[in-house]
Amino acid sequence: MGSLNVRAVPGLPEVRIGEDLAALIAEAAVRAGAPLADGEIVVVAHKVVSKAEGAVVALGDVEPGEQARELAARFAAETGQPRDPRAVQVVLDQTREVVRAERGVLISRTHHGFVCANAGVDASNAAEDTLVLLPRDPDGSARRLRAGLAQSCGVEVAVLIADSFGRAWRHGQVDVAIGLAGLDPLQDWRGRHDARGMQLRATWLALADALAALGELVRAKDSGEPVAVVAGLERLLTVEDGPGAAALLRPAEEDLFL
Amino acid sequence: MGSLNVRAVPGLPEVRIGEDLAALIAEAAVRAGAPLADGEIVVVAHKVVSKAEGAVVALGDVEPGEQARELAARFAAETGQPRDPRAVQVVLDQTREVVRAERGVLISRTHHGFVCANAGVDASNAAEDTLVLLPRDPDGSARRLRAGLAQSCGVEVAVLIADSFGRAWRHGQVDVAIGLAGLDPLQDWRGRHDARGMQLRATWLALADALAALGELVRAKDSGEPVAVVAGLERLLTVEDGPGAAALLRPAEEDLFL
Repeated sequence: MGSLNVRAVPGLPEVRIGEDLAALIAEAAVRAGAPLADGEIVVVAHKVVSKAEGAVVALGDVEPGEQARELAARFAAETGQPRDPRAVQVVLDQTREVVRAERGVLISRTHHGFVCANAGVDASNAAEDTLVLLPRDPDGSARRLRAGLAQSCGVEVAVLIADSFGRAWRHGQVDVAIGLAGLDPLQDWRGRHDARGMQLRATWLALADALAALGELVRAKDSGEPVAVVAGLERLLTVEDGPGAAALLRPAEEDLFL
Repeated sequence: MGSLNVRAVPGLPEVRIGEDLAALIAEAAVRAGAPLADGEIVVVAHKVVSKAEGAVVALGDVEPGEQARELAARFAAETGQPRDPRAVQVVLDQTREVVRAERGVLISRTHHGFVCANAGVDASNAAEDTLVLLPRDPDGSARRLRAGLAQSCGVEVAVLIADSFGRAWRHGQVDVAIGLAGLDPLQDWRGRHDARGMQLRATWLALADALAALGELVRAKDSGEPVAVVAGLERLLTVEDGPGAAALLRPAEEDLFL
């Protein structure tokens, strides 16, 4: 019988730039009485990765350009709320392409290729007057974290870095994978058939996104628990780091859901 | 420390029209040595619900119309694969609005309002020359299943009916909630603040979709295990059946991700 267990890792200290996140996670898991074990999947909210890597911007260092000032003024008018043009500039700096800018919301395609609100830039859980960016190379971050966990506690795990994205057609946000190491992001059953030889319809499963969504179920957003560990899915792990979450990006020209 | 457990329910027999799905699930769980318990969430792939409700069409009973014949001919030309115009007619019958019809793929808004490939119509795990539709009223199906489980084994559970949908911007499918009873589909933290008083960015979590995605992680698609049970999230359950998965539908005019 298939089963899995997900546990939050409590007690992670506030993460600062340059800190060894792998060691912090490994130690917190030990303190919680549930050390990491071979075959587990470590799901990390991107924010602590960004902080450890210094992917943080102080608003005082930002000089807003023309487009940022215009957007901030328009958003303020649309929403009736003040909008800091420096924060808009930070979002634009992370944006390869503005998908929509309406009703105070900026939907961006980031330099990585992710499509999300505000290019993933976030003020929550950040120090005052700073904004947290997405990691520059989340797949690289996941690979380093995986190697760091192997080194600091001798375990072979997979690492998934998650962020909460809105979606087309449906309300609310779900966590998706933005970085990944040690796991295939997609399970490809195309061409596979069911027990009676019929072609399967749902045949290209985004397992990494399903795993990312698990994290939000075990930790309250404001609890300071950015790490969840999934046990029982050893069969999904790969020796190689694999193609990463970048393999989940669908080019717009192939996209029939738009 | 937050934690949850997910287990597949093995040994569900082939489901036929008119059968008591609640009793079949309850009995299978008992046979597996893990009976349903209060506070658990029962995640059911929609296919068995559709079969029990008779939401199944025999292709021999279908007379394709003009639009179905045209689309089938075009899809066959686009893909180089034959396409049965009767199957296209079945999809059109389930479609309120054709979102896209390209490269052999029909993206529909269903009569329920879901946007998905082929209006959710599926040949996999169906008897030969039949197609399985989405349940007519999946939230109603979830409420009846919940009541049936309360009656047949005296447990207070939540019920979630899932289907695998493709997404905009990202490759692969994930399971989402199409029917729900006993659980709020969205956790609304808008206006809530983090530990240091900063406004949270991800504040409207589609928990029902995160739960739906769990199901695909514990069961292989071709294993005949359409039911998964989530334990450890009692705090999410509601006494009332609640607004159902219909509350997850985002009207196109509000959608900034398109």
